[in-house]
Amino acid sequence: MAKNSLGREIPAQWRGRTLDPYLDPWNKKPEVLRATRPLVRRSPGDSKLLPSLRAALEKCELRDGMNISTHHHLRNGDLLLNMLVKEMDAMGLRDMGIASSSVHAVHAEIIPYIRKGVITRIETGVNGLIGEMVSRGELNCSVIVRSHGGRARSLVTGEVEVDAAFIAAPCCDITGNMNGVHGPSACGSLGYAYTDARYAKKVIAVTDNLVRYPASPISISQSDVDYVVQIESLGDPRKIVSTTTRITRDPAGLLIAKYAAEVIEASGLLKDGFSFQTGAGGTSLAVADNIRRKMAAGQIKGSFGCGGITGYFVDMLEQGYFETLFDVQCFDLNAVDSMRRNAGHREISADLYASPFNRGSVVNMLDCVILGATEVDVDFNVNVNTESSGYLLHNTGGHCDTAAGAKLAIVVAPSIRGRLPIVRNAVTTVTTPGETVDVIVTERGICIADKHVDLKKELLRRNLPVKDIRQFHEEITQITGIPKPVEFDDEIVALIEYRDGSIIDVVRRVRE
Amino acid sequence: MAKNSLGREIPAQWRGRTLDPYLDPWNKKPEVLRATRPLVRRSPGDSKLLPSLRAALEKCELRDGMNISTHHHLRNGDLLLNMLVKEMDAMGLRDMGIASSSVHAVHAEIIPYIRKGVITRIETGVNGLIGEMVSRGELNCSVIVRSHGGRARSLVTGEVEVDAAFIAAPCCDITGNMNGVHGPSACGSLGYAYTDARYAKKVIAVTDNLVRYPASPISISQSDVDYVVQIESLGDPRKIVSTTTRITRDPAGLLIAKYAAEVIEASGLLKDGFSFQTGAGGTSLAVADNIRRKMAAGQIKGSFGCGGITGYFVDMLEQGYFETLFDVQCFDLNAVDSMRRNAGHREISADLYASPFNRGSVVNMLDCVILGATEVDVDFNVNVNTESSGYLLHNTGGHCDTAAGAKLAIVVAPSIRGRLPIVRNAVTTVTTPGETVDVIVTERGICIADKHVDLKKELLRRNLPVKDIRQFHEEITQITGIPKPVEFDDEIVALIEYRDGSIIDVVRRVRE
Repeated sequence: MAKNSLGREIPAQWRGRTLDPYLDPWNKKPEVLRATRPLVRRSPGDSKLLPSLRAALEKCELRDGMNISTHHHLRNGDLLLNMLVKEMDAMGLRDMGIASSSVHAVHAEIIPYIRKGVITRIETGVNGLIGEMVSRGELNCSVIVRSHGGRARSLVTGEVEVDAAFIAAPCCDITGNMNGVHGPSACGSLGYAYTDARYAKKVIAVTDNLVRYPASPISISQSDVDYVVQIESLGDPRKIVSTTTRITRDPAGLLIAKYAAEVIEASGLLKDGFSFQTGAGGTSLAVADNIRRKMAAGQIKGSFGCGGITGYFVDMLEQGYFETLFDVQCFDLNAVDSMRRNAGHREISADLYASPFNRGSVVNMLDCVILGATEVDVDFNVNVNTESSGYLLHNTGGHCDTAAGAKLAIVVAPSIRGRLPIVRNAVTTVTTPGETVDVIVTERGICIADKHVDLKKELLRRNLPVKDIRQFHEEITQITGIPKPVEFDDEIVALIEYRDGSIIDVVRRVRE
Repeated sequence: MAKNSLGREIPAQWRGRTLDPYLDPWNKKPEVLRATRPLVRRSPGDSKLLPSLRAALEKCELRDGMNISTHHHLRNGDLLLNMLVKEMDAMGLRDMGIASSSVHAVHAEIIPYIRKGVITRIETGVNGLIGEMVSRGELNCSVIVRSHGGRARSLVTGEVEVDAAFIAAPCCDITGNMNGVHGPSACGSLGYAYTDARYAKKVIAVTDNLVRYPASPISISQSDVDYVVQIESLGDPRKIVSTTTRITRDPAGLLIAKYAAEVIEASGLLKDGFSFQTGAGGTSLAVADNIRRKMAAGQIKGSFGCGGITGYFVDMLEQGYFETLFDVQCFDLNAVDSMRRNAGHREISADLYASPFNRGSVVNMLDCVILGATEVDVDFNVNVNTESSGYLLHNTGGHCDTAAGAKLAIVVAPSIRGRLPIVRNAVTTVTTPGETVDVIVTERGICIADKHVDLKKELLRRNLPVKDIRQFHEEITQITGIPKPVEFDDEIVALIEYRDGSIIDVVRRVRE
């Protein structure tokens, strides 16, 4: 057991894997060749159509111990992963790994199959109940939490081998050309599935909307697809995308957003060519709204918005505040519709978006990202994976990727949530290292990393409530009290992998 | 020396390479893993900009014996290859290979550098003077002629290693995102360069139009580009694309086109969903014109047109005769303009277009292709590489790829050209094997491969001049006489590689 550079205890090995402790955000370099896979020849007239998921699983010659993947572009409306797990059980497969891009609440259906030993590994992190049960020691399932960029990296380096990738295809032809913008399960970007299409040993397009050749546009092409399966329905459209994402109406959230926008303005980045990412949360959208007003007032033309895309960013594209949207995931129907019709709204892969191990990802060009947090600490480390309960409840998403890439990474959060202070002496779990976080904005104060001397001066000049983070921590905890620490057993139930593959933290079993 | 299945004598080895004699169009399977390359990490703020081609060549650490590539999307207006060869000479590099997608007349400027030993291998075939000089034994330069699909295959299998790919980018940003639709050197599709971007050890974007980040659209992305070099001019725009491609006015050509269109109609393929490729020659376009009229008369909605794209196909897209164009290369300005503005006009890579060794290429879905020929023979073998002079003058392009993929491969040619008969007992050089050629259409007669019994009957029923190819050969040679055979020395100066990597023929030194 050695400590990584953030003081987190990382074992030398975990469940057969040798661990590389996190050192810093920048210097770990790829030491392997790009992963490969067998080449395949298809002659004219060969059919890729298979009658069922079962037939596809059989064609892939899956054996105990292999990995499959699915992708979360259908989010909580996804039915595919559950269907596959049930089929694998019926086939008698055991000790399988799920190397999906994310696992959502809807996938709690696979819990009985984890208990049964059908699934023993989740290579991507989990949202919700499965994570909570893993944290409680109720499920014997290894979990490795990876960011979007880190997941792409793990496939490209071959650290994670996907034996069969099942890609939910809202629009697909008989050769496997597919897109996500047409059909009853339209979800927009298929960005998370691109890397699997290039690196999985077998690639299966699963569709509820088989169209005449050629599907158009082509997001993932026939040259990467082995088989095509038509099923009744990919998912529940109501849960695939929300009809709209909304700006918060909470006064504290609006104040946070106002402060965050002032920080961006004060940083000097808000000028022609400005690039920006926010999530889909109400406060994040309120920041975007403030930024749009400032851009309008200053007649500023930005360059690109990126990440998961909302209707709010679509409006900014259409109103000329951005020239381009880079979309790895559509968060609402407005974004899906925009991607269908607007050439400036561009689908990108998770690799191009955020991988640290390519010749340059989009996050490296970001001026500013607005991030959330379940906790931050006095060293600016951020936790989004566990809550103060200690339970593993959330995936990393692009959090640590964008923080590392952007010139200005701003965390927005209420100072107190559920009677607990947002700032801790040390976060329960480190998702994103403090070296890559620049500013923390709450409704009670703004904390700035020491290296930003000029920005701090400028914010003080603007009479904004700049506070030293340690003093701010004391100020809040005088209100909330110091929370009772969660007690953990020694047993490690999950790894938190940094985007470069080093281990930034572990999640231990909660003692109850 | 053994004979391949077409009776061509193929040595066991040639210049150090063990040769695999051609056997048949379908059964050779890939036996290797997909080629790989080192992974690279780029951090935010790293600059890819280099001040000159020389600086880029140095950064790539090129050594004697390595390969570089360029691409022929600027066709005869390309200046890049010549500039690179001169720089390599100035650096003292020798024994370099050119693994470009094609070499055109404009590249005759590199001849002195071949004589000097700077360049000793051309891995792609040649158009024009270099080929003629190689055929005469005047240049000591190994030439391997590959089709578009075969070239993609050779990179993907790793048979050809490109140490540095220099991609002419008509529109590019500082990270290497690029497209071919904007700027003074706009050429449309960058389809031939895609495979290099994925497989070359180093990838250099060379541009005369450096735009603000992000370039849009993105054809080849920053995640694959190592360096960016800005130069004064990529090429001579007048030679990059023709302003327009025209239908022939020659009566024989028009008659050939009429016959070809009747053959297509008689085949039963001309119905909803019809897909089609022609080249840019005047007769080919006349076939397209006839087909368009037949589609209009029958209210037929086709699915896709593909290949090198002309304004004629753009019109067919816009008039609803095709839903999609798959464009690996724009032949004229109308095509460039269409690709810029019409989402149905889609850029595709040479790999997706035509490689035999992927999970399915577009040519496999083609109903009908119209092909040219310098010679055909009584076994339906086609030559497009050499002329009856014996000189290697033309590249294969997509000829053998589309013939293998399409349900109906029709060769259109005048029965007599330059006083020589188009049909021979045996072609001088086999480019495309007779097994993949279905019909030969001339103004004097139509020859049909034996397997098409029903089509032959239908053409006879329509009173078309169907002729047995051996009898037709006799008929023409009664007019032209039997041409005096070209005399060759034993020395092999070039290989004709079939799309699967086997050797379908060799080119020998012409005895003069």
